[in-house]
Amino acid sequence: MSTMRTVKVVGYHEGLQMREAPVPEATGPWDVVVRIGGAGVCRTDLHILEGQWAEKSQVQLPYTIGHENAGWVHAVGSAVTNVKEGDKVILHPLVTCGLCRACRSGDDVHCENSRFPGIDSDGGYADYLLTSARSVVRIDDSLEPADVAALADAGLTAYHAAAKAAKRLTPRDTCVVIGAGGLGHIGIQVLKALTPSRIVVVDRNPAALELARSIGADVGVVADGSQVDQVLALTGGKGAEALIDFVGEGGATSEGIAMLREAGDYYVVGYGEDICVPTIDMVSNEINIIGNLVGSYNDLQDLMALAARGAVTLHTQKYALDDFQQAISDLDAGKVRGRAILVP
Amino acid sequence: MSTMRTVKVVGYHEGLQMREAPVPEATGPWDVVVRIGGAGVCRTDLHILEGQWAEKSQVQLPYTIGHENAGWVHAVGSAVTNVKEGDKVILHPLVTCGLCRACRSGDDVHCENSRFPGIDSDGGYADYLLTSARSVVRIDDSLEPADVAALADAGLTAYHAAAKAAKRLTPRDTCVVIGAGGLGHIGIQVLKALTPSRIVVVDRNPAALELARSIGADVGVVADGSQVDQVLALTGGKGAEALIDFVGEGGATSEGIAMLREAGDYYVVGYGEDICVPTIDMVSNEINIIGNLVGSYNDLQDLMALAARGAVTLHTQKYALDDFQQAISDLDAGKVRGRAILVP
Amino acid sequence: MSTMRTVKVVGYHEGLQMREAPVPEATGPWDVVVRIGGAGVCRTDLHILEGQWAEKSQVQLPYTIGHENAGWVHAVGSAVTNVKEGDKVILHPLVTCGLCRACRSGDDVHCENSRFPGIDSDGGYADYLLTSARSVVRIDDSLEPADVAALADAGLTAYHAAAKAAKRLTPRDTCVVIGAGGLGHIGIQVLKALTPSRIVVVDRNPAALELARSIGADVGVVADGSQVDQVLALTGGKGAEALIDFVGEGGATSEGIAMLREAGDYYVVGYGEDICVPTIDMVSNEINIIGNLVGSYNDLQDLMALAARGAVTLHTQKYALDDFQQAISDLDAGKVRGRAILVP
Amino acid sequence: MSTMRTVKVVGYHEGLQMREAPVPEATGPWDVVVRIGGAGVCRTDLHILEGQWAEKSQVQLPYTIGHENAGWVHAVGSAVTNVKEGDKVILHPLVTCGLCRACRSGDDVHCENSRFPGIDSDGGYADYLLTSARSVVRIDDSLEPADVAALADAGLTAYHAAAKAAKRLTPRDTCVVIGAGGLGHIGIQVLKALTPSRIVVVDRNPAALELARSIGADVGVVADGSQVDQVLALTGGKGAEALIDFVGEGGATSEGIAMLREAGDYYVVGYGEDICVPTIDMVSNEINIIGNLVGSYNDLQDLMALAARGAVTLHTQKYALDDFQQAISDLDAGKVRGRAILVP
Ligand SMILES: [Zn+2]
Ligand SMILES: [Zn+2]
Ligand SMILES: [Zn+2]
Ligand SMILES: [Zn+2]
Ligand SMILES: [Zn+2]
Ligand SMILES: [Zn+2]
Ligand SMILES: [Zn+2]
Ligand SMILES: [Zn+2]
Ligand SMILES: [Zn+2]
Ligand SMILES: [Zn+2]
Repeated sequence: MSTMRTVKVVGYHEGLQMREAPVPEATGPWDVVVRIGGAGVCRTDLHILEGQWAEKSQVQLPYTIGHENAGWVHAVGSAVTNVKEGDKVILHPLVTCGLCRACRSGDDVHCENSRFPGIDSDGGYADYLLTSARSVVRIDDSLEPADVAALADAGLTAYHAAAKAAKRLTPRDTCVVIGAGGLGHIGIQVLKALTPSRIVVVDRNPAALELARSIGADVGVVADGSQVDQVLALTGGKGAEALIDFVGEGGATSEGIAMLREAGDYYVVGYGEDICVPTIDMVSNEINIIGNLVGSYNDLQDLMALAARGAVTLHTQKYALDDFQQAISDLDAGKVRGRAILVP
Repeated sequence: MSTMRTVKVVGYHEGLQMREAPVPEATGPWDVVVRIGGAGVCRTDLHILEGQWAEKSQVQLPYTIGHENAGWVHAVGSAVTNVKEGDKVILHPLVTCGLCRACRSGDDVHCENSRFPGIDSDGGYADYLLTSARSVVRIDDSLEPADVAALADAGLTAYHAAAKAAKRLTPRDTCVVIGAGGLGHIGIQVLKALTPSRIVVVDRNPAALELARSIGADVGVVADGSQVDQVLALTGGKGAEALIDFVGEGGATSEGIAMLREAGDYYVVGYGEDICVPTIDMVSNEINIIGNLVGSYNDLQDLMALAARGAVTLHTQKYALDDFQQAISDLDAGKVRGRAILVP
Repeated sequence: MSTMRTVKVVGYHEGLQMREAPVPEATGPWDVVVRIGGAGVCRTDLHILEGQWAEKSQVQLPYTIGHENAGWVHAVGSAVTNVKEGDKVILHPLVTCGLCRACRSGDDVHCENSRFPGIDSDGGYADYLLTSARSVVRIDDSLEPADVAALADAGLTAYHAAAKAAKRLTPRDTCVVIGAGGLGHIGIQVLKALTPSRIVVVDRNPAALELARSIGADVGVVADGSQVDQVLALTGGKGAEALIDFVGEGGATSEGIAMLREAGDYYVVGYGEDICVPTIDMVSNEINIIGNLVGSYNDLQDLMALAARGAVTLHTQKYALDDFQQAISDLDAGKVRGRAILVP
Repeated sequence: MSTMRTVKVVGYHEGLQMREAPVPEATGPWDVVVRIGGAGVCRTDLHILEGQWAEKSQVQLPYTIGHENAGWVHAVGSAVTNVKEGDKVILHPLVTCGLCRACRSGDDVHCENSRFPGIDSDGGYADYLLTSARSVVRIDDSLEPADVAALADAGLTAYHAAAKAAKRLTPRDTCVVIGAGGLGHIGIQVLKALTPSRIVVVDRNPAALELARSIGADVGVVADGSQVDQVLALTGGKGAEALIDFVGEGGATSEGIAMLREAGDYYVVGYGEDICVPTIDMVSNEINIIGNLVGSYNDLQDLMALAARGAVTLHTQKYALDDFQQAISDLDAGKVRGRAILVP
């Protein structure tokens, strides 16, 4: 039995520690062991260390953190037909059962029997990770695992919401994006690829808006207090057909709803505050408020198809696996440009 | 020029008065004059008399009240091809333009240039009413105007929400209906006709639940404080795929959301209170909150097709037009069983 | 190792033979062994014996025939979570991979790596059958395996087409069903449960039409040469919004297309002849011709939900497994009323 | 009463003749008189002159030809609210009733009471044309009527089919376009704007394929007899998810169907030959054959939104109205590059 490096949560409000552990084996028929090529360092990891997920995940410490993973297939179980040793893959964040109603409908995110590596079981801050044939998506030869790993979580969430919105958007429609940060950055690229609608991006930061325009936004609106009026002015006073809120706090929800036209759709992605709407407004404006979780396995396949042709890209800042503490500290200190990635 | 009876709002916080007025003429090319066969007396009419609509409608007093109308075509304008004199018709509550984007998409309820007879212009507490070719729906020979008039407003609203919900409901799904009153009564019948799903009705009144079961509900749940638990128990702890809330006040919205399963749809029809949901719940449960206004002209056509085959019926209590004050007083006193209808 | 009875194809143009064989075991993790409660005897079985499937299936003789199966779970593999020993189940006709794009989308019928017990591997004319966790659907306590087994193939096909048609059918629409035989019988019941549209059934046999009316058809049209004219007359000269053709030969396709209105949908289920349509007619009438294969696993779940409430029933004629030859002979001789079922 | 120039069909198999006629007036409430800025010269016009439309259109000679029109609003009827004098507009080819079920559903192309200027009544080879408020679409300031007029027919047809196909196309899908001529040219641009799928174009002419690639096609396939094999090779042997056939003759339909994958969609736009498919193939491959007529009023609005941002462009060759005979002769002789346009 060979061993490997892993970075483990050993206690809440304590630092992560590197520990030696056995390399996982593909003993189950659908098991897939992946040699990690890149593991995203995510704000959720900071929250885990603060103990915010302890009760919900019920994870036993110590365990290996890291839920945004990509790499190469190292070993496969007896029943695996969709990947083989050596394949480059990105990992869907969930390991799902394949048998429940949700899984049988392609809506595997709502699987009734899933686990979540990096959250409730061993994740990808390691040399190797154990996952399932149902979670691996082959990526194009032109893509590198460390470049796409961070698309597995935030990117997939942004894709899911943007793809849902795209189903109703026509060339005459306007889609507002609130928040041109990490998720918004992906969301704008996805909207650009999937819809012919006008994309209006709202953010407090003029530099973020400039970047947004360079990747596909048609209009940037500075959130200086006049953002609702600006969006109404851009839409002839009627409001936007769809709005994706990647912020979800600091008043974004009430402003977002005020930017919607009659029969418009409000997509909730970012979270923090409560949405409060008078029922009379829901009825008289006949608007829809649409929740959005991370995307499905199919969504991840679609997102990787866009990535393969360069339609969706991500800025990354890479760290050696041994430098995990530096990456965590940089993220906490706001020093990471784009996404921090650990490379074993 | 012949004259007719009309019942007019002459002042807020005053009684209605019967006044003589000229019979309207079909001078415009799309005009249709309808001889009223029945005009529904609606709780909205009470609110109008209290002045609650004065600012919103900007209507000039005196004017003729009554927004739930059916009858016979009396005269048509030069361009009218869809009805002719003598046809039995029910009237869509809105007179729409036919040219705006909403109208061109079959979504005429969101017309940018509509009027609303009985609310912002002369309505149907009268012998005759002026409407448009775009608002008249021919009804089956087997139906009487006075029997269906009240379907034009509350019935059409219930149809619209139920038909939207029906699009996703399968034989394995559960649809919860909150409120077995006037709208719920229609909604249950429509769900029964349009979907193979299980229909669970929640109401405080056991007698209303018994009636609900007699018209198609599969299960009745008494809202005695345990209703959320009861619905969860009925759905294996998962909640319902869809829920139509015909109440919208007294805590119905938070209870309704608690009855939803992951990825479930909550249809808001009744109104009164605010909906308040943490964005994190919208996201983690990926639920949808869907506003519902009155149905479109197409919805009314569909509803009349159901009525023609007896799939949707309504209890009515008829009054002569001259007895308008009695009808209003009975409604205000809670003495009307089903819907009050004025018959000229 | 225990043994069981099986009925095997030992050669084409030869009779089936009963042979002893080992009871299959659940060695693979997703394996499910089912004790057969009923196995449908299908016209396809006659075609297999005539060698019509030999080249396509590439099956090695001898093998056990029987592709319409239901029974009780006898043993399960280590990874099976959706059924347990003793559960009453019906079997989807295909054993699918769960990993290909089709499987991941809920469209498992187009699985790229499926097998078809009874056609290309051992089927259900036996005491036990080996299938997969992905193929078993639990049925309601009120249903008996021998009563529903035949729904697994023809019934599922009819459900699939009718459910697709139901998505567009409104209370104002007409759906024509060509052929009130075995599939049509199920299709009519499914349409009745899923749609509010008018159901018009066309068949040569007045007795079949009478039966059709008793299970939900609104109108029966005798196919006496005037059927196209009759359907046009029933639809104001415009034709039907949708038509499901369970016949597909003897001129049904050209007659069916002539019964469609502009923008109408023609669902092909029965097969035999070629469909030939001038492209100019496809364009000027803007009609759609829609192919239909057997239903998905989800469709079978939905169909069983309808069966559980008595909304879909089937006439069966039962035979002991040992009497397999009698069942085959009766079917070939046209002596079976409803569906023949072997009961071990 | 002022007069204007018109170009009239005076007899079949005869030349067109210029005649003086009264300028039409907006006497009806929804009438719109348009000063023509450009009228497309279409192959259909040649067919009209050969008498091919005489029986179908029942038009009385002489009448003014020309069904692809754009210009400026000259006068409007009393009820017109969507355009005003001076507005730049393109004309939907049909003048529809606004009252039939199709019109009320946004599907105005299937209007039961429409007329077709240039085909069954006076068209746009003239200084002015009488149409309806329901047929005029305002175009962006940046567009010139003579540049977009030809989008009103062929362009709108291509848009309609491509937009229907786009509804199901994902980043992992392939859409094949057969025919890179006039319609295909628009179709490719629309697919590029509306879908993230790979676009594979099949044509006999390598130059046309080169042009196709320059406007958005991902792959060009020369139709040299190996085109079916080439498309299969490009799709891993499985075929394309969708195919739009702008040719419809010379074997295109059977080749197109052979290029489809299981559950694929075949869009018929070009016409000429018969489509003949064995019903068994429709069933076992579960494919769909989808007819396509010209687009709706909403489609034309969407297409003009794409044109306004330069996403859809058209090559035109302009002629003065007085040179109508030259334009017709050039078209007949194959000397027109792009579309011939008459400019009054
Ligand atoms: Zn993350
Ligand atoms: Zn699952
Ligand atoms: Zn989702
Ligand atoms: Zn009312
Ligand atoms: Zn309107
Ligand atoms: Zn069968
Ligand atoms: Zn598969
Ligand atoms: Zn043309
Ligand atoms: Zn029309
Ligand atoms: Zn169409």
